[in-house]
This record gives sequence, structure tokens and C-alpha cells, in this order.
Amino acid sequence: MTLSESILQGDRLALARVLTQVENDTPDGRAALDSLFPHTGKAHLIGVTGAPGTGKSSLVNQLALHFRKQNKRVAIVAVDPSSPFTGGAVLGDRVRMKDLSGDAGVFIRSMATRGSLGGLAQATAGVVQVFDAAGYDIVMIETVGAGQSEVDIARLAHTTLVVEAPGLGDDIQAIKAGILEIADILVVNKADRPGAENTEKALKSMLDMAHPTQRVYSHHGKYMSVALPKGEGKGEKEIWIPPIQKTVAIEGKGIAELVEQIEKHAAHLHVSGDWAAREHARLESELEAALRETLMSQFRERVTNQQYNEVMRQVFERSLSPGEAVKKLTNGRAK
Amino acid sequence: MTLSESILQGDRLALARVLTQVENDTPDGRAALDSLFPHTGKAHLIGVTGAPGTGKSSLVNQLALHFRKQNKRVAIVAVDPSSPFTGGAVLGDRVRMKDLSGDAGVFIRSMATRGSLGGLAQATAGVVQVFDAAGYDIVMIETVGAGQSEVDIARLAHTTLVVEAPGLGDDIQAIKAGILEIADILVVNKADRPGAENTEKALKSMLDMAHPTQRVYSHHGKYMSVALPKGEGKGEKEIWIPPIQKTVAIEGKGIAELVEQIEKHAAHLHVSGDWAAREHARLESELEAALRETLMSQFRERVTNQQYNEVMRQVFERSLSPGEAVKKLTNGRAK
Repeated sequence: MTLSESILQGDRLALARVLTQVENDTPDGRAALDSLFPHTGKAHLIGVTGAPGTGKSSLVNQLALHFRKQNKRVAIVAVDPSSPFTGGAVLGDRVRMKDLSGDAGVFIRSMATRGSLGGLAQATAGVVQVFDAAGYDIVMIETVGAGQSEVDIARLAHTTLVVEAPGLGDDIQAIKAGILEIADILVVNKADRPGAENTEKALKSMLDMAHPTQRVYSHHGKYMSVALPKGEGKGEKEIWIPPIQKTVAIEGKGIAELVEQIEKHAAHLHVSGDWAAREHARLESELEAALRETLMSQFRERVTNQQYNEVMRQVFERSLSPGEAVKKLTNGRAK
Repeated sequence: MTLSESILQGDRLALARVLTQVENDTPDGRAALDSLFPHTGKAHLIGVTGAPGTGKSSLVNQLALHFRKQNKRVAIVAVDPSSPFTGGAVLGDRVRMKDLSGDAGVFIRSMATRGSLGGLAQATAGVVQVFDAAGYDIVMIETVGAGQSEVDIARLAHTTLVVEAPGLGDDIQAIKAGILEIADILVVNKADRPGAENTEKALKSMLDMAHPTQRVYSHHGKYMSVALPKGEGKGEKEIWIPPIQKTVAIEGKGIAELVEQIEKHAAHLHVSGDWAAREHARLESELEAALRETLMSQFRERVTNQQYNEVMRQVFERSLSPGEAVKKLTNGRAK
């Protein structure tokens, strides 16, 4: 039996081994992804992102416990800024493990942020696919959520939670602005702290700016989505306005309501056709990333080290610009 | 006279125009980079990065004012998470502009974070080159400093400042771990706030972990670099231990000392040969990024939309994995 077959039958050890192969982008890992791919497409992928200090990890922990009560299998993919000398990612695991350890319906995986430009997003996409194929109903992807690569990773998800908390300094507005676009649900965690009302208000006014063409009706303190008028031959389409949910994760407050919002969003995605649209967008960007890698390795086979180093020398001397160097290396067929 | 020639003669309008072309990666922008490239290599590139709430912008502002007193021309490249609906980057400019506006020796440029995977790092590299060629002595690159793309951008710099501040929540340790590796100088800003001593202590102990093989001598509260014993035929080489500098940027406190540390670091880079090494690493990664883009556009010329869409359809149906799709599109020559 291959490792992939073992995974499909629920073997945790095989799963762990393939996750490592996929993360390291080994030939075995790539082969496993190929054979597991037809079994993907069932999991609900939930991104959880937010600035440092918002209590994301506690929230993910509580969400996992809640999903377990519904008898769903849960995978957590933690994308942490790592370091060769602190092993930061491992510590995060230990904290979470306290509540979830020993539960065979839960699998936690920390990604190391080795490699650069897109490598992490690609590895994370692979790891998520493996969990999906292995039959996990919920895959939560936790990111720090400030940089572009975190945004790219969050785009993997069907449902993205953006977590805020009161009193996190002045720059936070700028971060919110960048990340609000990807939010399907906004969470104000640590909502028992002073300033929580202000945080909620600030988010609400940013939402109003983001959705200026729609009216948002406030009903018992919750923001409701409204149907847009028919237009452009598309018929009626339900518009999703990100709700704002207050939580106190370490006390488990607001978690049930948050899970309800997550389920509502999943239902909305199916009804509106956005579930399929997001799947397509995700697979397309995955394909493009893989293409780029392959084109680069093919280039490395074509051009000798000597040719490459000679061109590089001219760039160092500044007798050739990087752009001119690329033209030379790709035989004048540069864009 | 071409725009590039005008830039070399100090024309600000030409400079602004070419910066836009370079940021948008237009053919004119690429041509300008080619003709300006031989004039680069003189500026001191300083990265300023740190978590939200550390007061980076105030610090950059104060540094710029200080460099201006030394009669150096200063460019500031602000890499902000942007948003199509808030125009967040523009606000940041306005705040800074108050102190620096009207000074012909200063040029401030905000980068929009449009595009994804590496696009921003590439555009920023181009913008920095233009400023370098235009004769700016100091180019400061300000990033939010949490994600991988910020780290990639910071790697552009000769000297990287990592800014911390007391009391920024619990997740901050994880961020520090990832970003400490790129720090040449550590800044504890807002050092008049409670907890500043603890922040400094925490940074010091992380530094000790990062440099376990060297002894760091503390002298009048400053950490000094020490010579390593001769070894491996390389002769003596001065090792740089990142100093920790306390500042209160909004009051201008500690700025002169910080500038002194920055100048010391530049001197160290020249003596040790690391200046050239960093230039090489930077140009090499720039060349590779440009190569990737070119290979991708060449691919788009080779493969018709129809072929691409047919393969994509099979991926959507899950009858073909992304890996298999890439093999098919690149004629089985996948890695």
C-alpha cells in the first residue's frame, strides 16, 4: 500500500510523513499530491489572520474544540514566522496542544517559513490539499496577516476570518486597510477589554467605506446582507457583507456565534456560486506558481553555470543591467 | 534629452515620472532602468522595518531630518499595505510631509502593494535603483516587517534597522524571532514608555542566542563588536554584533546616536568586504526575479489560451493535478 493509500484510510503516521515530503517539495511529495488530488475538494478551508497580539491562536483553539463537538475532523495549519535558532513554530504548537492533544480527530501542523517568494504559499497549498484528501472536514489556516505572503496564503481559504483586538497601537489602521478586503468575517477578540466598542465602530465604518453601493441594515446589532437589485443579466445575487463578531476566546465567549457565522458564509458561497469561483481562482494561482517553478528549473538545465556567472559578473561591474542580462540569458526573447 | 538624462541632472519632475513607469513595470520604465543602471551603486540603502505600533514612520522622519543637516540628499520609499478603497499609503505621506515638505533634498515615494508574489519586491528594487542613480546619498526603505515579502524587501538594504517598542502584545516574540536575523541595528523606540528596559533585555537575550559563539563585551552600556580569532585561511574579520539603540523618535531623542551606529555599520561593511557581498546578493536575486517574469511571458507566447484553458478545465474537474497539468503544458519537461 502506498503512503497516499494509507492516508486515504486514515493512517496518521503516513499523513505526517507525506506532509513533510510536501512541505519539502520532494519528488515523493509531488507524486503524493498528484495521486491525492482527485480526492480533494470536500473540506471547508478557513483562513484565520490578524495582527500580532489579537489572540488568533486561542481563537483557533476554541474553534477547533467547537467543531470537534459537532464531530467534524479538524486540521490546523499554522503559518508562523520562523527562525533557524528559536524554532518559534514549535512553541506555538505546544501551547495549542494542551487542549487538543490526544484527540485523533485533530491534526496540527506548523509550517516553517523557509524559502522565499511564494515558496511558503505553495507549500501551504500542498499541505492543505493533503488534509483535504485525508478527509478532514475543516482545515484552518492561521497566518500572522500583515505581509503580502500572508494575504496570498489567506486567499487559499473559502472563508477568511480577520481578527482584531482593542488597543493595538496606531499603525494598526494601515494594516486593517490592506487586509479588510480579504475578510469574510471580522472578529473583535478580547472584546472584554477597554476600547472594544471603538474597535468595532472603526471596523464598521471601514466596512461602510468598502461597500458604499450597498445599504447595510443593522438588526439587533448584527449587520445583515441584502439582495442587490437585478442587473447586468446576472439575476439576483445575494451579497455577503462581512459580519462583525465579538469574542473572548480564552473564555470561550462568542465562539458558538462565530461558528454560526462561518456556517452561514459556507451556505452563502454555495448558493451564490462563489464556492466554485474561489476553488477555480485558487487552483489557477496554484497552477501558475507551479509553472513558474518548472520554467525556472528548465532554464537552469539550458544555461550552464559558466554562462550564468559570466553574465552575473558583467552585472556586478554594472556594464550590463539586470534587464539586459535577462535578455542575453533568454536569447533576446525577453518581454 | 531623455527622461533618464534629466534625472541625472536632478530634474524632480522627470524623476517622479520615471518612478511611476518603473513601479508599473512599463516598457519605458524598463528602458529607463537599463540606462540608469551604470550610475547606481553609490547610495547607502537603509531598511527600516518593525511591527505595527513601533513608530517607524516617526523614526524615518527624524532620521531624514538628521541626514539633511549633514547635507545629504535623502529618498524615502514607504512600502505600505495599501488598499484600493482607503488609499492608506497617501495618508502616511501626509504625516511625514509636514516636516520634510518643501525640502528639495528630500523625495518621498509610497509603493502601492498591487500585484502579488514578489512583484512588490521587484518594483521596490527598481525604485531604489532610480533614486540611487539620481544621486540620493541615503535611500530609506520603510516596511511593516512581519511577512516574508517585507523581509525580502528589507534584504535590499545595506543596513537594516529593526524597530521594536515596549508593550506590543504577546505574539510579538514570534515576529522578533523571524526578523531578528536581518537586523544590523536594533532600535527600541518609545523608550520613555514603561517596559522599555524589558524590551531591551529581551532583545539582548535573543542576540546572545543568535551569536552564541562570540563574546559580546558590554562597554558603557553599548555592545561592541569583537574580532574573531584567525581561522580557515580568511585572516581576521571583524564581526558585527547588532547594537541596541534606544530612541524616542517624536522627541528626537537618540537619533544622533542612531545615525552614528548607522555610519559605523557602513564603515564595517566596507572594511569587512560585506558591502560588496550584499550588493552581489541583491543584484543576483534581482536578476533571478526578472528571469522568472521573462520565462513566464515567454511561456504565455508559446502556449495558446485555448490549450491553457483546456488543461485548466481538467484541473477544475480534478481529473488532472496541478503538477500533472504543468508537465503537460511544458511538454513533460517538468522537474
